[in-house]
Amino acid sequence: MSAINHEERVRHEGLREKIMTAEQAATFISHDMNVGMSGFTGAGYPKAIPAALAERMKAAQARGEEFKIGLLTGASTAAECDGVLAEANGIKMRTPYQSEAALRKQINAGETHYFDMHLSHVAQQSTFGFYGDMHVAVVEVAGILPDGRLIPSTSIGTNNAWLNNADKIILEVNSRQSLLLEGMHDIFDDIGVPPYRKPIPITTPGERVGSPYLTCDLDKVVAVVLTDSPDRNSKFADPDECSNKIASYIIDFFHEEVKKGRMPANLLPIQSGVGNVANAVLAGLQASPFENLTGYTEVLQDGMLDLIMSGKMTQASATAMSLSPDALDRFNANIEELRKRIILRPQEITNHPEVSRRLGVLAINAMIECDLYGNVNSTHVMGTNMMNGLGGSGDFARNAFTSMFVSPSVAKGGAISCITPMVSHVDHTEHDVMVIVTEQGLADLRGLSPRQRAQKIIDNCAHPDYRPMLQDYYDRAAQTAGMQTPHILSEALSWHQRYVETGDMRVKKGLALAV
Amino acid sequence: MSAINHEERVRHEGLREKIMTAEQAATFISHDMNVGMSGFTGAGYPKAIPAALAERMKAAQARGEEFKIGLLTGASTAAECDGVLAEANGIKMRTPYQSEAALRKQINAGETHYFDMHLSHVAQQSTFGFYGDMHVAVVEVAGILPDGRLIPSTSIGTNNAWLNNADKIILEVNSRQSLLLEGMHDIFDDIGVPPYRKPIPITTPGERVGSPYLTCDLDKVVAVVLTDSPDRNSKFADPDECSNKIASYIIDFFHEEVKKGRMPANLLPIQSGVGNVANAVLAGLQASPFENLTGYTEVLQDGMLDLIMSGKMTQASATAMSLSPDALDRFNANIEELRKRIILRPQEITNHPEVSRRLGVLAINAMIECDLYGNVNSTHVMGTNMMNGLGGSGDFARNAFTSMFVSPSVAKGGAISCITPMVSHVDHTEHDVMVIVTEQGLADLRGLSPRQRAQKIIDNCAHPDYRPMLQDYYDRAAQTAGMQTPHILSEALSWHQRYVETGDMRVKKGLALAV
Repeated sequence: MSAINHEERVRHEGLREKIMTAEQAATFISHDMNVGMSGFTGAGYPKAIPAALAERMKAAQARGEEFKIGLLTGASTAAECDGVLAEANGIKMRTPYQSEAALRKQINAGETHYFDMHLSHVAQQSTFGFYGDMHVAVVEVAGILPDGRLIPSTSIGTNNAWLNNADKIILEVNSRQSLLLEGMHDIFDDIGVPPYRKPIPITTPGERVGSPYLTCDLDKVVAVVLTDSPDRNSKFADPDECSNKIASYIIDFFHEEVKKGRMPANLLPIQSGVGNVANAVLAGLQASPFENLTGYTEVLQDGMLDLIMSGKMTQASATAMSLSPDALDRFNANIEELRKRIILRPQEITNHPEVSRRLGVLAINAMIECDLYGNVNSTHVMGTNMMNGLGGSGDFARNAFTSMFVSPSVAKGGAISCITPMVSHVDHTEHDVMVIVTEQGLADLRGLSPRQRAQKIIDNCAHPDYRPMLQDYYDRAAQTAGMQTPHILSEALSWHQRYVETGDMRVKKGLALAV
Repeated sequence: MSAINHEERVRHEGLREKIMTAEQAATFISHDMNVGMSGFTGAGYPKAIPAALAERMKAAQARGEEFKIGLLTGASTAAECDGVLAEANGIKMRTPYQSEAALRKQINAGETHYFDMHLSHVAQQSTFGFYGDMHVAVVEVAGILPDGRLIPSTSIGTNNAWLNNADKIILEVNSRQSLLLEGMHDIFDDIGVPPYRKPIPITTPGERVGSPYLTCDLDKVVAVVLTDSPDRNSKFADPDECSNKIASYIIDFFHEEVKKGRMPANLLPIQSGVGNVANAVLAGLQASPFENLTGYTEVLQDGMLDLIMSGKMTQASATAMSLSPDALDRFNANIEELRKRIILRPQEITNHPEVSRRLGVLAINAMIECDLYGNVNSTHVMGTNMMNGLGGSGDFARNAFTSMFVSPSVAKGGAISCITPMVSHVDHTEHDVMVIVTEQGLADLRGLSPRQRAQKIIDNCAHPDYRPMLQDYYDRAAQTAGMQTPHILSEALSWHQRYVETGDMRVKKGLALAV
């Protein structure tokens, strides 16, 4: 337990009396409980309780007792949260998103039930009890005001709902998070109960409609734990040639759309998934002539911070910050100024279909693979193993003014084609995918029938190694009876099957193309 | 050309001068044009122009000239519209929905490019030119006021957008439609241009926020054609035992949800797809103790009309009426009273994610098949042939408070299982499907991992003939490495393949289960 700063950070008298160690606080959590933790893309997750809880789990298991919880968060956390709990084999059910190696292994081994869902739905469906009761909330905050209002941390996620819904609340007060975050958040979640709901009043990405503070019933707070640990800091790879090509096609596309009068000269609010390719697109916008950009997205990462700091982007709305160590330093050094341009909201609002459809976001999200007809797989490796989860991609793609999915055309040194005859899992249907981009080029699928889409994807997006194989599949499929979406059912998933069996989707020389 | 009623129906002097025959009016349409026609589920489609246009097409083709158009509507039309144009092989591109046999044949033969899309997107994407220019609008109306405002017909669909976007307008004034429809419509479409849009102000299904009339630039009207023909009138089958069982499970589910406090005693606004099963559910509600129901749906069909007429349902919002001949008589006999409870809106508004998410609709839609993991196919027969299209099912399922998909557990006398290992096409992903219902039972999938879903769907929804086959597939798949979504890739689509080859998904006696 760190003693530093707790006078400054925990300014409510009654809550100060509840300060205890993580080990003590973890005793409020027992087997079979549903626990709602803070955390979104490695930002603002609890740093101490999960490890203490994992020790309790291991001790119980050593005594021959079961100790597993249902774990709900905003999105992904880190090794100190999902990781330690998974290693203790303590997660029975997990939702809505994860990206941690140990947990992924548990999920794919069938040890953990993972329920993969749209991030915009988490608060509503949990509040209405679709996932059972919420027993304990564990929420990281930057500080507690004298009246008990909470200064949120580097992510909001679903914290507001966990605080409202849980029977008991444990607060982690992390003195490593800047107190200058105060005022950056906008907690609006009073959207009512159906069918008596009012419109969400946001009409620009930067509009503030709520309070900068989280609140809760202070009587429910059973423990306050002091921590002093940084968020997971992932360094992004510098944009490589592949990412830069993808970025350049997207920026060319934006230029064309502006020229056609479909969007204003400063574009529409940008939503960008997390990752190296997304970061390269944002870096490409930095070098572009576009000015006065706005962002309405889920996660603020390095590239978007740079756009804001350079003045290229005037407003950005997100629910979390996922910054590299360098970017975090820049952020902290300029936080007073950045507070005027960055807003952190609950994920129910950042990802809400009402707002993204209204604003008309430009959605750019990564994919694992897409097929000839524009169906996209964002989650599964070879149809059966979970990678991370859907995240907010569906919230945005469905409601975007333009929805784009991006990926290098091949993976694993060319052994996997990211364009396949049929995807092995569908997260975004042909109806929700407007544009596909790889380093080979861009395929604008809007208004095209499946057959027209297939030819465009083969020509513009497939890797040259796989283009003849795709063309061959498509040509033979188009000989069959059903010409809306030509497929050879016995062969549609054979590329994945071949990869599982041989480690390569390509047919070895001397073998026939067909299975 | 019918002379009846045209004094009463066309009350604008200038437009009266533009009255001409359908043959004359059809000359405004030529090869390669995009034509936006009215029509939604066989209601309010043009009755005369399509046939006249088809004759022009056939004459041109007889001269060796090409004559094909891009045809956009609200949704499905009828034999006199899609049918005659398809039979003339005159449709190059079709969107967003169809259900006509001749057109379906053209699509599946590869003669027509069919672009299947969410109905809520049609107006926006067409207005912004995603599908090219709109050359001619052909819109059926019930009458024209002295100042040129238009009394809409039995559907609104995307008529408001066609009238705004088209270079030229042809109006069909159909004296068979009741003039008492005047006042039943609510044309609100001033939702602005992104990113400068305001909230859609609808907060209850029955709220009127626009005008009862369509308007257009009268200078763009090149022709007025008088018609006197009924809409396509489909008789619904009387609910059978299978439909009644499905309805009873859904009503039990609603009771449970009310008991759990998840929705009020008068339920949430009901959205129901079109068809016999949906109609049976509505009939089931008629017999249930629920009172003061509301509807926020796409199409008002017999069952919903009965709920309104009996007083069980107080408000219903839709974009079209699709009534059997008997129900139409009841409707017309009571239209003055019904006008207080029924509102017809543009499909962009009935299907808008903003409104359905806000109100929290209970979405009940039919499916062709679903798989072990809750992915739903609404459109494709054996993966390659188009049935009708997606319609509004995705608009509603994604944003519903509870999304349900219903089907008998088998089709074709048992030769097809509507629960399959993997669906042959995905229209609604596992993330958008909360409840599956067949005559065998109901599977509530909320909060369940894919493996949990599989067992529940097998146990509750599969037909006994197929239950052991599904269990066998699942058990063997669960031996593979990827336990998030167990599949045997080489076998996942084998049931469909077997049906194509043998006409039966069941394995014949004496053959092994595996392919």
